[in-house]
Amino acid sequence: MAGTDGARRGPQADKDGPAVVLVDPQLGENIGMAARAMLNCALFDLRLVRPRDGWPNEKAVAAACGADAVLDRLRLHETAADAVADLQLVYAATARRRGMTKEVVTPRQAASDMRRLTAAGVRCGVLFGGEAKGLGNDDVALADAVLTVPLNPGFSSLNLAHAVFAIGYEWFQATDPTAATALTWPKETRPANKAELFALFGHLEKELDACGFLHVKEKRPAMVRNLRNLFQRARLSEQEVRTLRGVIAGLVKGKTEAD
Amino acid sequence: MAGTDGARRGPQADKDGPAVVLVDPQLGENIGMAARAMLNCALFDLRLVRPRDGWPNEKAVAAACGADAVLDRLRLHETAADAVADLQLVYAATARRRGMTKEVVTPRQAASDMRRLTAAGVRCGVLFGGEAKGLGNDDVALADAVLTVPLNPGFSSLNLAHAVFAIGYEWFQATDPTAATALTWPKETRPANKAELFALFGHLEKELDACGFLHVKEKRPAMVRNLRNLFQRARLSEQEVRTLRGVIAGLVKGKTEAD
Repeated sequence: MAGTDGARRGPQADKDGPAVVLVDPQLGENIGMAARAMLNCALFDLRLVRPRDGWPNEKAVAAACGADAVLDRLRLHETAADAVADLQLVYAATARRRGMTKEVVTPRQAASDMRRLTAAGVRCGVLFGGEAKGLGNDDVALADAVLTVPLNPGFSSLNLAHAVFAIGYEWFQATDPTAATALTWPKETRPANKAELFALFGHLEKELDACGFLHVKEKRPAMVRNLRNLFQRARLSEQEVRTLRGVIAGLVKGKTEAD
Repeated sequence: MAGTDGARRGPQADKDGPAVVLVDPQLGENIGMAARAMLNCALFDLRLVRPRDGWPNEKAVAAACGADAVLDRLRLHETAADAVADLQLVYAATARRRGMTKEVVTPRQAASDMRRLTAAGVRCGVLFGGEAKGLGNDDVALADAVLTVPLNPGFSSLNLAHAVFAIGYEWFQATDPTAATALTWPKETRPANKAELFALFGHLEKELDACGFLHVKEKRPAMVRNLRNLFQRARLSEQEVRTLRGVIAGLVKGKTEAD
């Protein structure tokens, strides 16, 4: 779906984003899905510490679904300490409470902090443990803070790739300018203007007067308001106004011919 | 990791949350991982439309990692229209632009809207397409609005279970009260109070005077301030203050014996 060029067009420059460090990962599928999730979120720096099934791993490549921009620069390390040696701010992703005095932050807060610090030239990263045991306490002690995804307390064990995605997702959202909600139109049309909408209302109300639907005089104003309101709420395009006028004409014609 | 009881202790009552509708899902693994991601996020209502490999599916059960609270009440439907018939607000999750005039919302906005409407008794749900093709235009036309996860525009195709997780994650975060950042202490200790901290400072500075480290008189005030500041920033526990005093005493003693 995306070659290196496409993958690098994202809002985040290649070298800037946080590193993702997987310590003792087991399943190639999860490594590959983590790589795919990273590229979805414009993260490129994946580091593996002692992957159980070695590297390269065919299952990881298949599960990455073309996230070559991540796999091509993946690095292997013998210890978690080696893997984070060049980083200046490191989070340990874990849901378990440790017997340590430690700052615990949400992914949203960590993403906001990492965006700010990355912009100031600080190299950041997140440690993730393997599928079976998660991070050991010695790995957690390498980190500045613990990163915990707030989740259902009755079922909080996340799939490894989902944990990576939760962090990447917040990293991407932290500066993404997408409007929370936006009405989009196809290229070939545009929002109807009010004159077009009022002409539709006039057409409909004329035919409804003609067929007797609006014959109860005291009810007419409220019914007209309700119908106008319904079509206002639909945020019609110019094309749709024309379609609805055709619908009205078609229904009127059908009735005439059936009489 | 969690039985039914544990799974239902989450903040979201069983029947309230949005339904997740997978249309033409292919891989059992993805259905199972979607179920696991849903329970992670306290969502329980999973509906399948024409799963390619039928149902039940052993691979789905394995990938669900014990998310029985979701799998046990999973429902099968013959069409997407059937699957959403009881719902009142439906989103279509898709990254592709369609030739339709349609509201496009982010997961965060949709989660906020669904929380508000669910609390008012409105039944909500989200349609997801299969791995190969995503949702068809006829399925998108069943929905009130399109839900698009803002992602790397060069590589925006999400794994199906990750797409489900993105929505569930925002659903859970929308009302989760977890502090964005919090320092936690092990049960057996507590934050040091200032008297304990000042006693540590006094101990350290006395020994640094004795060994000559602070002998440059005009530099002494700034050095003392820097050292005090460093230990303030570490937010020490009472236990750690005692440990550091032992460290100072040990270093002093070692030096004495070496002399």
